[in-house]
Amino acid sequence: MKNYLIAPSILSADFARLGEDTAKAIAAGGDVVHFDVMDNHYVPNLTMGPMVLKALRDYGITAPIDVHLMVKPVDALIPEFAKAGASFITFHPEASEHVDRTVQLIKEHGCKAGLVFNPATPLTYLDYMLDKVDIVLLMSVNPGFGGQSFIPSTLNKLREVRKRIDQSGYDVRLEVDGGVKVDNIAEIAAAGADMFVAGSAIFNQPDYRTVIAEMRREVEKAHGSFH
Amino acid sequence: MKNYLIAPSILSADFARLGEDTAKAIAAGGDVVHFDVMDNHYVPNLTMGPMVLKALRDYGITAPIDVHLMVKPVDALIPEFAKAGASFITFHPEASEHVDRTVQLIKEHGCKAGLVFNPATPLTYLDYMLDKVDIVLLMSVNPGFGGQSFIPSTLNKLREVRKRIDQSGYDVRLEVDGGVKVDNIAEIAAAGADMFVAGSAIFNQPDYRTVIAEMRREVEKAHGSFH
Amino acid sequence: MKNYLIAPSILSADFARLGEDTAKAIAAGGDVVHFDVMDNHYVPNLTMGPMVLKALRDYGITAPIDVHLMVKPVDALIPEFAKAGASFITFHPEASEHVDRTVQLIKEHGCKAGLVFNPATPLTYLDYMLDKVDIVLLMSVNPGFGGQSFIPSTLNKLREVRKRIDQSGYDVRLEVDGGVKVDNIAEIAAAGADMFVAGSAIFNQPDYRTVIAEMRREVEKAHGSFH
Amino acid sequence: MKNYLIAPSILSADFARLGEDTAKAIAAGGDVVHFDVMDNHYVPNLTMGPMVLKALRDYGITAPIDVHLMVKPVDALIPEFAKAGASFITFHPEASEHVDRTVQLIKEHGCKAGLVFNPATPLTYLDYMLDKVDIVLLMSVNPGFGGQSFIPSTLNKLREVRKRIDQSGYDVRLEVDGGVKVDNIAEIAAAGADMFVAGSAIFNQPDYRTVIAEMRREVEKAHGSFH
Amino acid sequence: MKNYLIAPSILSADFARLGEDTAKAIAAGGDVVHFDVMDNHYVPNLTMGPMVLKALRDYGITAPIDVHLMVKPVDALIPEFAKAGASFITFHPEASEHVDRTVQLIKEHGCKAGLVFNPATPLTYLDYMLDKVDIVLLMSVNPGFGGQSFIPSTLNKLREVRKRIDQSGYDVRLEVDGGVKVDNIAEIAAAGADMFVAGSAIFNQPDYRTVIAEMRREVEKAHGSFH
Amino acid sequence: MKNYLIAPSILSADFARLGEDTAKAIAAGGDVVHFDVMDNHYVPNLTMGPMVLKALRDYGITAPIDVHLMVKPVDALIPEFAKAGASFITFHPEASEHVDRTVQLIKEHGCKAGLVFNPATPLTYLDYMLDKVDIVLLMSVNPGFGGQSFIPSTLNKLREVRKRIDQSGYDVRLEVDGGVKVDNIAEIAAAGADMFVAGSAIFNQPDYRTVIAEMRREVEKAHGSFH
Repeated sequence: MKNYLIAPSILSADFARLGEDTAKAIAAGGDVVHFDVMDNHYVPNLTMGPMVLKALRDYGITAPIDVHLMVKPVDALIPEFAKAGASFITFHPEASEHVDRTVQLIKEHGCKAGLVFNPATPLTYLDYMLDKVDIVLLMSVNPGFGGQSFIPSTLNKLREVRKRIDQSGYDVRLEVDGGVKVDNIAEIAAAGADMFVAGSAIFNQPDYRTVIAEMRREVEKAHGSFH
Repeated sequence: MKNYLIAPSILSADFARLGEDTAKAIAAGGDVVHFDVMDNHYVPNLTMGPMVLKALRDYGITAPIDVHLMVKPVDALIPEFAKAGASFITFHPEASEHVDRTVQLIKEHGCKAGLVFNPATPLTYLDYMLDKVDIVLLMSVNPGFGGQSFIPSTLNKLREVRKRIDQSGYDVRLEVDGGVKVDNIAEIAAAGADMFVAGSAIFNQPDYRTVIAEMRREVEKAHGSFH
Repeated sequence: MKNYLIAPSILSADFARLGEDTAKAIAAGGDVVHFDVMDNHYVPNLTMGPMVLKALRDYGITAPIDVHLMVKPVDALIPEFAKAGASFITFHPEASEHVDRTVQLIKEHGCKAGLVFNPATPLTYLDYMLDKVDIVLLMSVNPGFGGQSFIPSTLNKLREVRKRIDQSGYDVRLEVDGGVKVDNIAEIAAAGADMFVAGSAIFNQPDYRTVIAEMRREVEKAHGSFH
Repeated sequence: MKNYLIAPSILSADFARLGEDTAKAIAAGGDVVHFDVMDNHYVPNLTMGPMVLKALRDYGITAPIDVHLMVKPVDALIPEFAKAGASFITFHPEASEHVDRTVQLIKEHGCKAGLVFNPATPLTYLDYMLDKVDIVLLMSVNPGFGGQSFIPSTLNKLREVRKRIDQSGYDVRLEVDGGVKVDNIAEIAAAGADMFVAGSAIFNQPDYRTVIAEMRREVEKAHGSFH
Repeated sequence: MKNYLIAPSILSADFARLGEDTAKAIAAGGDVVHFDVMDNHYVPNLTMGPMVLKALRDYGITAPIDVHLMVKPVDALIPEFAKAGASFITFHPEASEHVDRTVQLIKEHGCKAGLVFNPATPLTYLDYMLDKVDIVLLMSVNPGFGGQSFIPSTLNKLREVRKRIDQSGYDVRLEVDGGVKVDNIAEIAAAGADMFVAGSAIFNQPDYRTVIAEMRREVEKAHGSFH
Repeated sequence: MKNYLIAPSILSADFARLGEDTAKAIAAGGDVVHFDVMDNHYVPNLTMGPMVLKALRDYGITAPIDVHLMVKPVDALIPEFAKAGASFITFHPEASEHVDRTVQLIKEHGCKAGLVFNPATPLTYLDYMLDKVDIVLLMSVNPGFGGQSFIPSTLNKLREVRKRIDQSGYDVRLEVDGGVKVDNIAEIAAAGADMFVAGSAIFNQPDYRTVIAEMRREVEKAHGSFH
């Protein structure tokens, strides 16, 4: 797998032309499609479900699709998203009564599994799960809406997770979501993230390719600086 | 307003090209866009939220949009859908603690309001609301999924509501949703419905115009027979 | 018991001087203290609990206290309010899984029991309970806040309940709550109510005695007109 | 099928010897095993689940087993009880968001389906379901515990359901549960019930055969009197 | 701000004379009014809502009011309490899906924000929030009722939070609530608390001034001993 | 008390002959009856409630009964199980709003109290409770069903809890539940457990006595190796 991944979040794409806009972001250099699922219970917004994901696959999107479940409870939707074509499925540990079972369920359905940490959520939920997950996703905004600003204290939290992952020896992606932009992605990468979700930073720009290229340059600069 | 309305349900449209597919259905003769909102709590499926509706308005859809909320609770989403461009908002009385307040809320936000009845839901929920709603929607399938068959006992229920509306003298649409097709729309119209939701019946056909035209012919035949 | 009762609702009283203000309303001719309990779950407001009621009894309020529970679920609070000194306890049938059991529980704790009907709630909940309740309370506003306007269609609903009660031969009070004022209490009485909750109509006036006396005059006029 | 059925409720049996005690009640003349499932959410008690039912089938109980679900929500347990060997499955309409779908689900799993009415529950829930159910169960006590007394107003309610069933022409059992005993079963039968659940009345007696025989005599006397 | 604050909890005041009793406690030397909000969902008691707080402000209480929300969910009440005149708003992290957002919401409404820890709640909820809160409140009893005894293991927990706050360099109050009395306040202060809620200890005494003065003497003695 | 305890889990016993099968497991050398309570809300299964426990006591089972509550919420069932004859009651900290109060409640009802940790649950819930509990139960499978395989990472977690208990000096049992068998019980004992739940490992064997004896031999071997 690549050293790091840029994941355009289609929460900021044009829902009336979702196939086209998603394809454009991938063609412009995006590695992974980030797909935000909100149920108006776990977060105060409702976005899109498995039928929308399936339509993207039918449209011809072949890039990995990274489903971030902001729903509670979690388990019933997992088979639906797996069937619809999800590649990764991540969820919030507070939203599932049985976190280990939910991770197993995601894997049994052939997807990679991850835990998502809200800005205030302690890392203790990782204590007995780091050997079982493929991704750790740190939220750098409170989930529910696009277009928010990066919470700076996330940088320290990223460093702590990076340290835990490196010490463990496990192959775990460290993803970050919320307010990631060209001008802060370098320090976010330096803090240890290797998967970057970006929504409005990409889709609100006229030329996706330029933004993504700038992001890559910044990330590589950051990696250069500490390798 | 028209004597009767055909409302293509975009639950069966192509979510990757939602703007285009919706516009096509309206251009083909659809009167109203039917928009099914599911939250995976009131029904076992999750579909699409206010951002998707807003994208349709931004795309240029100007037809009335009829939002059917299959969510519980209901109130928090009403301002969001109204702001996004909804024309009608209907909800299930079992899903709101305060049905009269929810109807008022919809109207205060400038939309027309309606109550939806599941196949097993008694009509008693209408007893003190017929003077306050603009639409009564009878489900002729259990909500949650497209492509189900029309439940025949809905015909009697339609007749009863038609009678109540006519006796009341109020100007209330009688909408029906679930399994409506060219070959049963005549008897559904004869039973009293004047707004017809059709999803797979339209969107699974190569030529939307033909289906909608056939539906109109059937409805008019039915109306002819009892006028 | 009296032919009819005026029940000042202390939801509109001064919560900083609740003992004094309540006593004043009773001294001014109020028959019953109406006590609105909201839990911010069944209705979007939180008001006051059993400790406040107990404080009123300790202050010396001896008039009957009519507790209207706008809470869900209901049962756990019943013993607390009975112990604190409630006389009547009413609740919404939609808020209890086992309506008959809740009524029995209220009676076992020595209080009179009643069912409350929201503006949209059908009267079918009375079908098998009229022989078991002491009070039927019709809401003429949506519960949650003081100071709202009387919903006119309540008048027909009052007539229907009055008819049911009279035909049954049971001794059941017919209470009404929401927007009751001097200028509409006569027609409300004429429609069959014999217990009148009034909050802002009384507590927002400089002289409670005058308002209550005017209400009585209006009610008696109404009764005169149809007896 | 038989004209009427006696259904010993194993809620009152010896849970330490459930196979033996159940077999004894069937051998003593019971027609159907009544199996009360409580989840401590819909009712304030927790009893027994599908594994217990399966154990009865493995023990050799071949009589029909009538599962009364006092749980909320309902749907997830239906496949489990069907697989474990249930014959009938009944549930409370207030406990399912989609009553018609739940009835369909029970039938798809090969069981007969029924709706249960609490003492206060109006019969309006039958309005559009009488053509789809195999059983209507009227509770003559509030569910949750054995050993309660029959609520007399159930007799009128039984008469009303009996009338509805007879007028409909459908083949629907009318079951009654709660406080049924030798000395009131005749008037219950006369009111229209044709399936009688009895728990403590049977299992608290030394000789089940005698009680059941007396119940039959009483029921037949009642039937004689009005045929 | 003062070195330490005494906060009389009006949960133990006379609810029939709440304005007068609160004013008396402030006049007797109380620094802050502690206001306990319970919704009968997060804790098994229901106390008082925003209207009661507003009445205290209208009565003339100008001291800071410290609102402790024992409710779930939390967010909807925050604007209401802010508008009614709250100074501080604290809540339990387990009661909010999005702890960081709730803290932001409190601050956006112009109040100081705090997290409350139940006796068994681990301090990990502070890990990423110490830079964002103004208050940490440790419960030294299980919330829900007045008049309980101080749980001794709270002393160690206070020492740990004190150490975290001092090491962080942030300006965060360390509040304690439950069973605080004249005879234990010294060791509680020595353990690091600098804001002391006291309910029955003050309001059950004939002379509030004497108690509060004794509490101050004890706190100062404690501070003397370790400064 | 004994150095270590073997606790046959009757989740795997024959529910049709529960008295006999339980007695057999105790006679075969079991120390404690493990009793799994599931409510189909906290876990996706429903098993058995207080009436079943009472039946075992009435049958003559005198061994300690260890009730594992997989229910949410917890408190209402505690008095019922205590009255029915429970000896120990354990619960999941995530399933109770007020963990310390629930532990107190169990003790007030005369039972020993414990906390249960799911595979993914961090040990932070123990931080302020180790001085108050009698048992810590680590789940080595996700609760809900019998017959699953032991999750190997539980061994490290056991070591950590063993260390915490030993350092604290408190007298706390360390129980393990899930996939415990003759061939892994030695390493589980070596990791620090001193109470072993075994369900299918015992009840699926023809001779319970042999299995339990083998388990004891293995445990003693393990203890020998590190004493």
